[in-house]
Amino acid sequence: MKALPLPVQSLIDAFSRLPGIGPKTAARLAFYLLKDEGDTAQALADALLNLKADTSYCEQCHNITLAGQALCEVCADTRRDEHLICVVEEPSDVIAIERTGIFNGKYHVLLGVLSPIEGIGPEQIKLQSLLERLQKNAVSEVIIATNPTMEGDATALYLQKRIAPLGVSVSRLARGLPVGGDIEYADQNTLQRALAGRQSME
Amino acid sequence: MKALPLPVQSLIDAFSRLPGIGPKTAARLAFYLLKDEGDTAQALADALLNLKADTSYCEQCHNITLAGQALCEVCADTRRDEHLICVVEEPSDVIAIERTGIFNGKYHVLLGVLSPIEGIGPEQIKLQSLLERLQKNAVSEVIIATNPTMEGDATALYLQKRIAPLGVSVSRLARGLPVGGDIEYADQNTLQRALAGRQSME
Repeated sequence: MKALPLPVQSLIDAFSRLPGIGPKTAARLAFYLLKDEGDTAQALADALLNLKADTSYCEQCHNITLAGQALCEVCADTRRDEHLICVVEEPSDVIAIERTGIFNGKYHVLLGVLSPIEGIGPEQIKLQSLLERLQKNAVSEVIIATNPTMEGDATALYLQKRIAPLGVSVSRLARGLPVGGDIEYADQNTLQRALAGRQSME
Repeated sequence: MKALPLPVQSLIDAFSRLPGIGPKTAARLAFYLLKDEGDTAQALADALLNLKADTSYCEQCHNITLAGQALCEVCADTRRDEHLICVVEEPSDVIAIERTGIFNGKYHVLLGVLSPIEGIGPEQIKLQSLLERLQKNAVSEVIIATNPTMEGDATALYLQKRIAPLGVSVSRLARGLPVGGDIEYADQNTLQRALAGRQSME
């Protein structure tokens, strides 16, 4: 027996294409599903096939929305503050910020981040539509919530340069120690930021 | 926006049902697939749907085989030694032993392991068909290759008790230090086994 039966090997190969899933994990998942007597494999297959068919991107902010809906739930919600826009990299970041429960503005999803190494420039992310939104609507503040990485920081700086001339104030998320973190184990950069951005306790 | 659009949430839920995949990993996979422009989701869905349709179990040894084939590749291979049977828990163990390249006998896959806590007794694993194989065919040795766990050890002992009266010699895989391991970090049980089973260097 030189190899696994083709249907099993095909599933292992398909799982291995997912990020963070190596051949060993993929094999474990495949053998689990082979043994499983429930509908786990069927449910996963259905969800995979429905994913793209049933979703699309919001025409205004590029967040995920249900297929056939021009605007996402946030953009369609008239109770939310239109004068405040939070710019994020990915739709998953919208969910993270929504979970805080303290942001009542709208979003703009870049669907990417500037990365010259990977050939991703301003044309490859949803930047132009952000500038158009700012020109058309009376936005008072843009909060930049890109990731605290090299690419996220570069993107934030670039955005700030492009947005400032429009007379819109630009802010970004605070850097510092994560809640529940340990100063002893905080990395040097985070601690430098926490010191430089220290807040008055008065 | 209280929650993710349903198609995305459904996929996250489906991924979360897999062993070792928590909600965060599931979300990461779902957002990866949402952004992916290739056919990764489609390929995975196809492989999942084909898995059960295109595979079945060998009638003799219960290893995986292609649907419509009564015997698996090993059982159908007349060049392999019929007098030697290696008993394993799962089809994935067959692949592991085949990879060593030094076993030329046949297999018997129990499709499980004795586990009184989970209600798995001798009737729930493929034990009866093993005893029948041993009675019908001239088998000289059974190598028990269950996992070196509590359940695997209990299963090995039980198998030995049932097989010995048939006049078939029973052996099991050696215990000891794994190749490339470090004595300093070997656990107590492994080191005890390695000492007790020390091999003469003559």
